[in-house]
Amino acid sequence: MPTPTQRLAELGISLPPAPKPVASYVPVVVVEKAGLAFVAGQIPMKDGVMLTSGTLPNMVTLEQAQACARQCVLNGLAQLQAALGSIDRVKRIVKVGVFVACEPGFTDQPRVANGASDLLVEIFGEAGRHARAAVGVPALPLGAAVEVDFVVEV
Amino acid sequence: MPTPTQRLAELGISLPPAPKPVASYVPVVVVEKAGLAFVAGQIPMKDGVMLTSGTLPNMVTLEQAQACARQCVLNGLAQLQAALGSIDRVKRIVKVGVFVACEPGFTDQPRVANGASDLLVEIFGEAGRHARAAVGVPALPLGAAVEVDFVVEV
Amino acid sequence: MPTPTQRLAELGISLPPAPKPVASYVPVVVVEKAGLAFVAGQIPMKDGVMLTSGTLPNMVTLEQAQACARQCVLNGLAQLQAALGSIDRVKRIVKVGVFVACEPGFTDQPRVANGASDLLVEIFGEAGRHARAAVGVPALPLGAAVEVDFVVEV
Repeated sequence: MPTPTQRLAELGISLPPAPKPVASYVPVVVVEKAGLAFVAGQIPMKDGVMLTSGTLPNMVTLEQAQACARQCVLNGLAQLQAALGSIDRVKRIVKVGVFVACEPGFTDQPRVANGASDLLVEIFGEAGRHARAAVGVPALPLGAAVEVDFVVEV
Repeated sequence: MPTPTQRLAELGISLPPAPKPVASYVPVVVVEKAGLAFVAGQIPMKDGVMLTSGTLPNMVTLEQAQACARQCVLNGLAQLQAALGSIDRVKRIVKVGVFVACEPGFTDQPRVANGASDLLVEIFGEAGRHARAAVGVPALPLGAAVEVDFVVEV
Repeated sequence: MPTPTQRLAELGISLPPAPKPVASYVPVVVVEKAGLAFVAGQIPMKDGVMLTSGTLPNMVTLEQAQACARQCVLNGLAQLQAALGSIDRVKRIVKVGVFVACEPGFTDQPRVANGASDLLVEIFGEAGRHARAAVGVPALPLGAAVEVDFVVEV
């Protein structure tokens, strides 16, 4: 079976440089005794630019939001790679929280979140299958359309 | 002291079949080293139908939302039973996150969340007493009025 | 290096009495096997009164919200002190969740959350540096402007 790093290469994905937190906190905290790493909420910045801003469904489409969720995963994996040396040290994706900036009445948070979940399974296989909570929120940091945080087993 | 399974019987509660996740993720991830299980966000589906849709207080009453929170617990316990073989393997309910679909100005999230918390204590006794965060959100998956996720000790 | 308790004294901060949960749950659950403590969502009550109610930016200013986030930390540390005997038993602040009551279009959640994060680093030094997720929400318990929950290593 290919390692997650090999899968990234097969999928033609390069992880971005690990984005700096937008404020006074750290991107990853590892708790060795628990075998868990907690990854800070990631927003869909790419090359220093927000991929998409605003709320679904009027300002942001489902497809744009799925691309945002996917970018949040890439940024989170970049953080894990920076913190752990390699994403191959991730044994299991445990829990993913997906916050979707939306207007009242928008109920497709699960399909947005699949942008994150599907990519994790593509990269990690069975070990990428995780528990998840997806909820709507009125607004996110810097206007992000999606924010994703992670708990992983290391 | 009765086991949680015995308490369910005393309370006349049968757990529903474990609902399938509405998207590409799994309902429960167990991290053996930490002795923790993470349960995905549960929505108040009962027999395949959403118990109540919409936001508090104009579209959904407090009582309806409490019933939703309670149903989320039953669905979460059904997931744990399916994953662990028996809910008697749950040593402690650790953390419960309660997301309440509401309009701006609604501030009774704790009373909604008590629908979940009270049932957990009825079933698990002292081991059912948990840390909790209850917050409002503008919208939830499939229009659910309440979503609840769980961290438990196993 | 000063202990967190000594740092509090140096900073001239006394922890408040541990606030009672506003509903049927407990403030802190410790999972010994994982070496983790989960702290329930804290709201900015001070001497039994809500510091600030409402949403940013129209009803609540950034400065008021930062003071709220700071108060949530003090209340959370008071809970940890009550549960553990001393906050010096906290080895590391692991994850902080910051929920900011706001109107659509407000995107400064990170600066609000810094009110919490900066105080944690002032008190715990490097061990206070944590992973974080900050999101907007339409409404919080009892009208709070900010709610903060915590995972810490013990």
